[in-house]
Amino acid sequence: MEAVILLSGGLDSAVTAYQARQTLGQDGQLFPLNISYGQIHEKEKDCATRIASSLGCDLRWIFVPIHSLVKSSLTGTGKIPSKEVEGIPSTWVPQRNSIFLALAFAYAETVGAEYIYTGFNSVDYSGYPDCRSEFVSQIQIALNLASKRFIENGKEIKIVTPLMFLSKGEIIRVGLNLGVPFQDTTSCYQGREKACGVCPSCRIRLQGFKDAGRADFIEYEGDMNG
Amino acid sequence: MEAVILLSGGLDSAVTAYQARQTLGQDGQLFPLNISYGQIHEKEKDCATRIASSLGCDLRWIFVPIHSLVKSSLTGTGKIPSKEVEGIPSTWVPQRNSIFLALAFAYAETVGAEYIYTGFNSVDYSGYPDCRSEFVSQIQIALNLASKRFIENGKEIKIVTPLMFLSKGEIIRVGLNLGVPFQDTTSCYQGREKACGVCPSCRIRLQGFKDAGRADFIEYEGDMNG
Repeated sequence: MEAVILLSGGLDSAVTAYQARQTLGQDGQLFPLNISYGQIHEKEKDCATRIASSLGCDLRWIFVPIHSLVKSSLTGTGKIPSKEVEGIPSTWVPQRNSIFLALAFAYAETVGAEYIYTGFNSVDYSGYPDCRSEFVSQIQIALNLASKRFIENGKEIKIVTPLMFLSKGEIIRVGLNLGVPFQDTTSCYQGREKACGVCPSCRIRLQGFKDAGRADFIEYEGDMNG
Repeated sequence: MEAVILLSGGLDSAVTAYQARQTLGQDGQLFPLNISYGQIHEKEKDCATRIASSLGCDLRWIFVPIHSLVKSSLTGTGKIPSKEVEGIPSTWVPQRNSIFLALAFAYAETVGAEYIYTGFNSVDYSGYPDCRSEFVSQIQIALNLASKRFIENGKEIKIVTPLMFLSKGEIIRVGLNLGVPFQDTTSCYQGREKACGVCPSCRIRLQGFKDAGRADFIEYEGDMNG
């Protein structure tokens, strides 16, 4: 069995990749794909490379200049907020997951993969509409209608979201069981050497480790990691 | 009213852009978007620039390395066929239109556009599954579920495909009525200085002009253009 893995270098996608390895077994072929899009936190690519390598896979990396088409504080327009807000926050990158999934389907067609694994989750999900199950179901239908595999052989490519309904604490517990090297993941939106500990992504991560009952594996500026 | 136009530099998208100008009027704002993807026929960008300019618009151009993820004779894997084939041909680029539409939705969100115009058509469409009306309807639903405009205000972004059910001859007749500068469009898959006249795209174009009752405006190698 073959699976394309959308591997951002973040915590969720790392747990997802390890989950895919467990589900598909050692004979399963994983094709991790990392997509840079002009985000500030470019260190994601290094993290994704290390996670892929720990799973015995080469990372496929591409750059897609989404930042030149959108306004988002993750790609340099405005400031990253220091706390969570109501509604869709400034860190949201319009259609990022749609673009990533369409590219993943294209890659899946090339390598003959039946599955696309993503770490999307809708619990501690920062208010991003393109992380919801409803969106994933609809885009799976649409992208299969543009898939040669489906049109010619009736074989769907399936988007697998093992973390969709888990909280961050639950995701971390799953990852601990699977032996995910959390020290090789990054979550901070600022992309500095150490995590800032105050951006919404750091806050959700720190709370998750607290809920999971252990300290985080990465370093924070100051002394955030209890 | 605002509209993003997927402007490839080909005949169909040029007619579509002129149709959008007519529908939205001189006060309508058009945002033409051209996406290079590692195709052999790179002269499309120059054509798109000229078409945009003839409509009084600047072209937004980005490069997305789809060619590094897919196998297609349009991006250098294998030979461009010299005639049409049964089923999905080697010139098909997997998920190209899905990727383009997701990027167009992202751009529409930024510029506040309600419409995305594309030249997709399903009559003389070369057997590409992602040119069909069924695909467009489904991906419109999916991409709106990932749209801030829709989630927060219930306002859909609509994909407009004025050429969907027209033959190539009919498209050319519409374009002639609208004053489309066909000499600034390109269709040939080979991307040489003059059109080859024998690739499937040239054949469909030449037949279209024949059906429309006039000679093409571009130059062909040899003497193909009757």
